[in-house]
Amino acid sequence: MSRSPFIEQLRSRWRRANTLLCVGLDPDLARLPAGASVLGFCQAIVDATADLVCAFKPQIAHFAAVGAESDLEALIEHIHTEHPGIPVILDAKRGDVPSTARFYAMEAFERYDADAVTVNPYLGPDSVEPFLSYSDRGVIILARTSNPDARWLQDIGGNMPVFLQVAREAAGWNEAGNVALVAGATGVGELARIRAAAINLPLLVPGVGSQGGSAEDVVRAGADADGYGLIINASRSVLYASDGVDFADASRAEAQRLVDTIRQAQAVR
Amino acid sequence: MSRSPFIEQLRSRWRRANTLLCVGLDPDLARLPAGASVLGFCQAIVDATADLVCAFKPQIAHFAAVGAESDLEALIEHIHTEHPGIPVILDAKRGDVPSTARFYAMEAFERYDADAVTVNPYLGPDSVEPFLSYSDRGVIILARTSNPDARWLQDIGGNMPVFLQVAREAAGWNEAGNVALVAGATGVGELARIRAAAINLPLLVPGVGSQGGSAEDVVRAGADADGYGLIINASRSVLYASDGVDFADASRAEAQRLVDTIRQAQAVR
Repeated sequence: MSRSPFIEQLRSRWRRANTLLCVGLDPDLARLPAGASVLGFCQAIVDATADLVCAFKPQIAHFAAVGAESDLEALIEHIHTEHPGIPVILDAKRGDVPSTARFYAMEAFERYDADAVTVNPYLGPDSVEPFLSYSDRGVIILARTSNPDARWLQDIGGNMPVFLQVAREAAGWNEAGNVALVAGATGVGELARIRAAAINLPLLVPGVGSQGGSAEDVVRAGADADGYGLIINASRSVLYASDGVDFADASRAEAQRLVDTIRQAQAVR
Repeated sequence: MSRSPFIEQLRSRWRRANTLLCVGLDPDLARLPAGASVLGFCQAIVDATADLVCAFKPQIAHFAAVGAESDLEALIEHIHTEHPGIPVILDAKRGDVPSTARFYAMEAFERYDADAVTVNPYLGPDSVEPFLSYSDRGVIILARTSNPDARWLQDIGGNMPVFLQVAREAAGWNEAGNVALVAGATGVGELARIRAAAINLPLLVPGVGSQGGSAEDVVRAGADADGYGLIINASRSVLYASDGVDFADASRAEAQRLVDTIRQAQAVR
């Protein structure tokens, strides 16, 4: 059975499940609970938090570093099969010349069957187009990232900095309704400028939790006119809430705490 | 037996093998000669051209799109074993926050055992540092790419555009002697500015051949003071010189033609 387009799955989760939370799946062998496998760990987190999320976001390097591509395939299939309607964002930050970008799009959308993928805009529009041509899949373009040195390149350009030019242009690529942007929680002012430049695009917001961003500030600066429009990601703070046998319960508790915080912020914005 | 650092292997190939040519390994199932496998095809190209190159550059998406990671592993091991002294550049254009970049560096340098990797600078210096910390491996940072829309983001910034700021800053990250830059053959003026900003860094130059850049122009604009300093890549024009049973001989002939052209340009610059 074919799935709904990414944007429809996302909107349905926002409204019907009443959640903007995305759980990032970044398995680190050095931090897994004793005896847990990569796949078993990730599936347990997924099953413990599925009703609380609008999306899951596996990060591909955590699998590729240890040759665990088959685990990533199995994990994505597990989400599609056991939790239909929850979109899978493959966090890969790909970017290459068009002839190669076509192969990266195949990797994300055909090989892994992800509903959306993150893309780096450094090479320009022609490098993004092969992803956009999969009109039912989401293409989530980096505007402002959440790391400490984000502003180093992304602020070049004075009053019209790189991150804002990316956001403005990307809004024009949304003919199929499949474009979204990354806007980090660690730069709330930039997040607000991105929202103003791309009023209809979903924003994937990393940087809440371990990286120090505030969910309340993110909702205030980034929600759309209806109070939705955000995919607020937490990875390590949820995954590694406990390293004991109770790890799945602890992850759920942290996810629930974040969802409650986000809902309160939506109510008062 | 451990290998020499990337930069030493590269300099040795430039001088002793007298070649600046890099052959890019971009296997496309739709273009392989009848009956050829991904691994068999790539190994045949490698064996037919090894004495003519300063490096080989497998492009990871061409393997990942079809789940052929084990072929990529075997190909790199084949080069290391059968052609020691020829460095392998993994073309992956990775870029992510530091905690994730660490896993991408593991992917390139430990899982695949590449001598160098291409890296996207969009996230800034802290996203590059996990790669730089492998001091014997090369970190080849995108400055100016070879695709038609390269200037869209890379020219932002007026007199001090993004691509040039990347080149200047990267020259300052070269404490271990392991930094290089990408500078496309399709923008010779920009290539010359990058050379002037980073006089000691090797430049990986894509865009000769199928993409239309000229090897003569590249040598004139980009060679260092000694007439070296360039890794001039050709992928499709070499790989797909023939789709018949003579494909390896045809690839060698095209590689030889490029080497001759480059040597002539070195002689008259």
